[in-house]
Amino acid sequence: MPRTRPGQIHLAAFMNAGPGGVGAWRHPDAESGWFSPAFYQKVGRILEAARFDFVFFADSLGIPRSFGNSIENHVHYGVGTPRLDPIPVIAQIAAVTEHLGVGATLSTGYQQPFNAARTFSSLDHLTSGRAGWNVVTSFQDAEALNFGNEKLPGRSERYQRADEFLEVTAKLWDSWQDGALKLDKASGDFADPAAVASINHQGAHFQVQGPLSLPRSPQGYPVIIQAGSSPDGRDFAARWADVIFCSHASIESAIAFYAEVKALAARHGRDPDHLKILPAVTPIVGRSEEDAEARKLEFEELVPAEAGLARLSYHIDVDLSQFDLDKPLPPLEVKGVYGHYHEVLEVAARENFTVRQLGKWYGARTEGDLVGTPAVIVDRMEEWFDRRAADGFMISPTHVPAAFEQFAEHVVPELQRRGLFRTEYEGATLRENLGVPRPASGEWKSRLR
Amino acid sequence: MPRTRPGQIHLAAFMNAGPGGVGAWRHPDAESGWFSPAFYQKVGRILEAARFDFVFFADSLGIPRSFGNSIENHVHYGVGTPRLDPIPVIAQIAAVTEHLGVGATLSTGYQQPFNAARTFSSLDHLTSGRAGWNVVTSFQDAEALNFGNEKLPGRSERYQRADEFLEVTAKLWDSWQDGALKLDKASGDFADPAAVASINHQGAHFQVQGPLSLPRSPQGYPVIIQAGSSPDGRDFAARWADVIFCSHASIESAIAFYAEVKALAARHGRDPDHLKILPAVTPIVGRSEEDAEARKLEFEELVPAEAGLARLSYHIDVDLSQFDLDKPLPPLEVKGVYGHYHEVLEVAARENFTVRQLGKWYGARTEGDLVGTPAVIVDRMEEWFDRRAADGFMISPTHVPAAFEQFAEHVVPELQRRGLFRTEYEGATLRENLGVPRPASGEWKSRLR
Repeated sequence: MPRTRPGQIHLAAFMNAGPGGVGAWRHPDAESGWFSPAFYQKVGRILEAARFDFVFFADSLGIPRSFGNSIENHVHYGVGTPRLDPIPVIAQIAAVTEHLGVGATLSTGYQQPFNAARTFSSLDHLTSGRAGWNVVTSFQDAEALNFGNEKLPGRSERYQRADEFLEVTAKLWDSWQDGALKLDKASGDFADPAAVASINHQGAHFQVQGPLSLPRSPQGYPVIIQAGSSPDGRDFAARWADVIFCSHASIESAIAFYAEVKALAARHGRDPDHLKILPAVTPIVGRSEEDAEARKLEFEELVPAEAGLARLSYHIDVDLSQFDLDKPLPPLEVKGVYGHYHEVLEVAARENFTVRQLGKWYGARTEGDLVGTPAVIVDRMEEWFDRRAADGFMISPTHVPAAFEQFAEHVVPELQRRGLFRTEYEGATLRENLGVPRPASGEWKSRLR
Repeated sequence: MPRTRPGQIHLAAFMNAGPGGVGAWRHPDAESGWFSPAFYQKVGRILEAARFDFVFFADSLGIPRSFGNSIENHVHYGVGTPRLDPIPVIAQIAAVTEHLGVGATLSTGYQQPFNAARTFSSLDHLTSGRAGWNVVTSFQDAEALNFGNEKLPGRSERYQRADEFLEVTAKLWDSWQDGALKLDKASGDFADPAAVASINHQGAHFQVQGPLSLPRSPQGYPVIIQAGSSPDGRDFAARWADVIFCSHASIESAIAFYAEVKALAARHGRDPDHLKILPAVTPIVGRSEEDAEARKLEFEELVPAEAGLARLSYHIDVDLSQFDLDKPLPPLEVKGVYGHYHEVLEVAARENFTVRQLGKWYGARTEGDLVGTPAVIVDRMEEWFDRRAADGFMISPTHVPAAFEQFAEHVVPELQRRGLFRTEYEGATLRENLGVPRPASGEWKSRLR
């Protein structure tokens, strides 16, 4: 079938600095080296050899306790914990790679913008322009309780803080003009003082004098990654994000989301092509359809229902322990992360799952229905790309590093054969590989609400 | 001369993630790769080959503006800025070394203990037990102004916050018992929930529920490094620090400080041998005494007086621009860092320096008077060790990496020949190499005031 959309897809890898999906660590091929750089560096080398745009690390700031107000299931089954600070992890991946972008999550809720701006500017310098920041506002009470807050602020308040947080960090990234460094040993001129200025930010949440104590970084701003899919989140992402990742139960909902966010970006004066939308997918590659389905079943058997329920309670921030596990789930308001969870609950209602069955199903759930042979998987990816449901994909692995190895070995060559994916890195920075321009100094002004 | 004190010295390297001493970056042999991992990794490899205990990075959270309330001299001459976030820097050094300890500064004034505890636990895991934390309380108004505070809190208030900060981080490090991880693929038991507990800390500055989202790290607590030399600082260090670094204008003041801090540690119930005192020294190695003196002069000529004044204003947090540069300095109250600055001002008075001369002198000042041949330098180090002025030294280089290379090539072999320094690493962790025991779980209780 001839391609109906020019261009190529982008590929990112979704990681946790700790065990990933429910039960994934139990797979015979899964490695459990989460406390050692070798594990992450191996992943980085696999992804770079496969020409991925970037790897990024999700994060949370505490052990979830959404199920029964207890950490027990999370600790017992390794769900959502442990989690290392992703900043040193991506620094260590960058130390053994040359082209692969590296992104880390940092919450605007529990950090200060000066520190965040300096950390990501440092990473962008130390990676020669390969750094990304996944901006989150944090959504769990369990996190708030680790930072002196009884309760999480509401979503709208969190995004107001996030907006000002980004404004401050961007002002700081621009506080040294490009070219301010002189490094003239003979004259002793280190930098041009006229090219470095305070920011004197005085806002509702933050008062920051600046300037940053670092020159402007190779990418100007690190690549901003965002996953907000609530109305507040979409508006935030349409203004600030270079990459949006999302999750959809159907191609139709993905197409609608894609159109809406691109239109929103255009309304904010941005070129919609400069915002890349990458739905999460979990490929399960088989030699045949039957082989792939058998592999999927193998994963499902590793998932205890209680572990899946803990994960779902955490993701939707609703305590599912309050319901009879052997009866269907009553209708729920989704308080936690937004996105596809409405669809998840629709599936639960349609299938008439008991709460326990829902836990088992959700714990083993894969994203994007990419279960099959490489040809089938690439057909599906091509369809999503051609129909403008996606600019590329966030590969969310079943188990690490084996799932990345299988994708790299079997799926990437088929993508390349069809001209859908690069065979060599062409850009010097992550922005260049993504096709997202380097922001001019002062660009933050056009990103404000 | 026979040794009068058994044991061996410890060696640490003092670094900035940016240009170091005033004018040092101008030296023909100085490298200026502060924005690239290769620079730091080269330093790490040199130090590991020389069997150093650890390298650590000083830090500050903003460009100083103590001189004339302006960043101008600092930017113009590269004094105290730029500064990368040291966390990714030490992660990248650890990625290419196996034995060298790696320490970073993090301020208790402008971070949250949950994040700090997780970052250093992550580093300790990712380095297999080689991480150190240099605890500072921050002393500049220029830093406070980057975090929404008009003025710096007083020293006593800063140390009260630091004390509670350390209490919370240590509770978090102990919130998973050793051995809590099971990783039993067959049963699905990831960890033992009975071995992981909330901390429920409710204090004056912090309320933190916990637990940490990470298992207890290889060293239990990272090595705690501290430089406080005010009465509040000494008390804090005597309770919490594993390593104290300090600066002395004479061996007599170093001996007095050493005796006082060790006695203080004993009064707090600690074995004084478990707190290592490392005065800062700046070796300038020559083929002869004349050669060494000539090298020292070479550095002095690279220092503009205005740059030295900016540095001194910053260190003592007194605006020296208010004085006539061509007259002697009037008597001053030292507001900023404590320590040796009283002695510095005594020297200025004794020498009857004008303010400008003082700036030039201070900018070019080296620590510990270690200027000479390797034999003379080692004589001096041996004297400091034998007379209990030091348990070892913090090598503060004139220029990087050349000064470390010269020290490694010429001084370390002489130290080894005299049995004063290790020829191989013996421990697996930084604590083991330092001879500082791994804290038992709950040890924080004995460290409180």
